[in-house]
Amino acid sequence: MRIPVLIPFKPGNPKTRLSHVMTRNERELFAGAMLADVIKAVEQGGFKPILLSTEPFAYNTVQVRVSTDGLNEAIDTAMSGFAGPAAIIMADCALVTPSSVTRLCQTKAMMGIVPGKGGGTNAIFMQTGNRFKAHYYGQSYRKHCAYAEESGITCEVIDSFRLHIDIDEEEDLVEVFLHNSGEAKRLLQYLGFDLMTTNGRVGIQRNQNNNE
Amino acid sequence: MRIPVLIPFKPGNPKTRLSHVMTRNERELFAGAMLADVIKAVEQGGFKPILLSTEPFAYNTVQVRVSTDGLNEAIDTAMSGFAGPAAIIMADCALVTPSSVTRLCQTKAMMGIVPGKGGGTNAIFMQTGNRFKAHYYGQSYRKHCAYAEESGITCEVIDSFRLHIDIDEEEDLVEVFLHNSGEAKRLLQYLGFDLMTTNGRVGIQRNQNNNE
Repeated sequence: MRIPVLIPFKPGNPKTRLSHVMTRNERELFAGAMLADVIKAVEQGGFKPILLSTEPFAYNTVQVRVSTDGLNEAIDTAMSGFAGPAAIIMADCALVTPSSVTRLCQTKAMMGIVPGKGGGTNAIFMQTGNRFKAHYYGQSYRKHCAYAEESGITCEVIDSFRLHIDIDEEEDLVEVFLHNSGEAKRLLQYLGFDLMTTNGRVGIQRNQNNNE
Repeated sequence: MRIPVLIPFKPGNPKTRLSHVMTRNERELFAGAMLADVIKAVEQGGFKPILLSTEPFAYNTVQVRVSTDGLNEAIDTAMSGFAGPAAIIMADCALVTPSSVTRLCQTKAMMGIVPGKGGGTNAIFMQTGNRFKAHYYGQSYRKHCAYAEESGITCEVIDSFRLHIDIDEEEDLVEVFLHNSGEAKRLLQYLGFDLMTTNGRVGIQRNQNNNE
């Protein structure tokens, strides 16, 4: 039995903080490319991806559950069905690898957590899925740690930059170029993005001619 | 014999990208506090910190080597003296823990590397210190990986957010509040900084009255 890994995903108008560098259509393609990379890493790690989508969506043979509830409610509903181990990984963790998922799910603690940049929660593992209660948004990392402590759930912070970095802002695209070798990087290249170095600082440039 | 860990450090006018939220004196205190946390993690991991400073500096009983050379030259000179294992960790990796240093130095590859945000290099481990050649600045992560490949040096990327996050910008101070429990966090609190959440996004605020 493969351990289920929930991947919450919003197909429509995602990644709005990239609006100044990508059209809506491009952002939807990019979010889908990152999702494909996350799904692939989860599958190659030997886990079972389950998409938790805000609207109907199909991706190969991956199981999709559609929920129009809020993120916390949708996750709680899905996790309540797992009496054994289960995990949650965000769909924009484009740097994830099979071994980072494996490290998350091999924790000896009752809960494993990887904080995101700025206080969010990018990945959760629970030995007993239905003991989880989602507290996403805001300082969710602290809320999840506090929930574990109040509930007598031992918790280990998994030290992984591949699960710590989620792709939200233009500067994060640099990390995709450096540490992703899948669909997300290929799409950025197709759209004409590339790395540039100015005064020793690395950034992103876009060659509009590449995408005519 | 403890494995030596070089910690390059610039005491004067450091962290200029924090100038809009800290005076020069405060930045010097903050850089010193982060350095203290890095030194402590290195020592608690069972390694031997060696400060590589741009000017005379004393920190407890830690060995200090002063070099007015550029960073690459100073590191190459120091590493050339190590025929066995040696490491380099940047002084602003304020989230580092003994176990993240240990994971770096336990790689089976000939070289271990932890990329920094934006293409830098935050940590290096070499089984044979004097085979290293420093290529800091710009896209140093790619340069170091390319150097290893050209030189027949096997290289493993160590997946650690604690070594991946260096503290350069205001937004990085959030990570110090969340994941540092030492001198750096204490100093920020002393200076009146605190976390704040606005519209679900976590940032930093400063209460000027706290530091009269």
